[in-house]
Amino acid sequence: MALMDDNREVPLGLKSQQGNYLHKVKKIMKRFAFKMFLKPGFEEEYEKRHAALWPELKKQIKEAGVKNYSIYWDKETNILFGYQEIEGEQSSQDMGADEITQKWWAYMADIMETNPDNSPVTIPIKEVFHLD
Amino acid sequence: MALMDDNREVPLGLKSQQGNYLHKVKKIMKRFAFKMFLKPGFEEEYEKRHAALWPELKKQIKEAGVKNYSIYWDKETNILFGYQEIEGEQSSQDMGADEITQKWWAYMADIMETNPDNSPVTIPIKEVFHLD
Repeated sequence: MALMDDNREVPLGLKSQQGNYLHKVKKIMKRFAFKMFLKPGFEEEYEKRHAALWPELKKQIKEAGVKNYSIYWDKETNILFGYQEIEGEQSSQDMGADEITQKWWAYMADIMETNPDNSPVTIPIKEVFHLD
Repeated sequence: MALMDDNREVPLGLKSQQGNYLHKVKKIMKRFAFKMFLKPGFEEEYEKRHAALWPELKKQIKEAGVKNYSIYWDKETNILFGYQEIEGEQSSQDMGADEITQKWWAYMADIMETNPDNSPVTIPIKEVFHLD
């Protein structure tokens, strides 16, 4: 049997004769971008808290399939621009049923515009262009 | 020789005994996010023109190492958020020396806020969080 030595994706479950998976399978990925609103003067605090994101929350987000998640801050408008890639069913903003997420939102509520349940006001923004 | 059937990165140049590269090598990647400004009422036109992005410009951007490039439109502010991953030296916004880029910028100048050289007004925004 010849080596599969290119980078082709293979159907889920295809194994080598040794019984090992030959390549990772590409999962369906969706991009999600949104804006949130930081209260004026809290940029440093926002960054500091996120640099120390709770490990259990990090784990929860990753296990839900949210990847390559970045947040950017626009100093002229105080808008926070979030970008993430989602392999599961939920974005990070849909995880309000999760207890750790609820605690995080309560912790962040003093420096962000929030909804009555402490979730950050989140407005999806529309993709108008993409180039792989 | 056993199959290399995991997903490890291998040093550049490592080949199988058949002479083929076993795996892609991970390159250094930088993220870049920025905002631009769309003139009011041109969202549909912006999207339409970008859906028909000139193949030679697409090629130029890709060959320069700009990947996973998305643009989002915020309807409340008319701000365009750009996100891209860069493996080379330049972002898409640094390519003003390129003739095709110049032509594209001239073509887009009627619907965007631009600088005197037709380049879109581009303001980098600061990354305040990232999770792989």
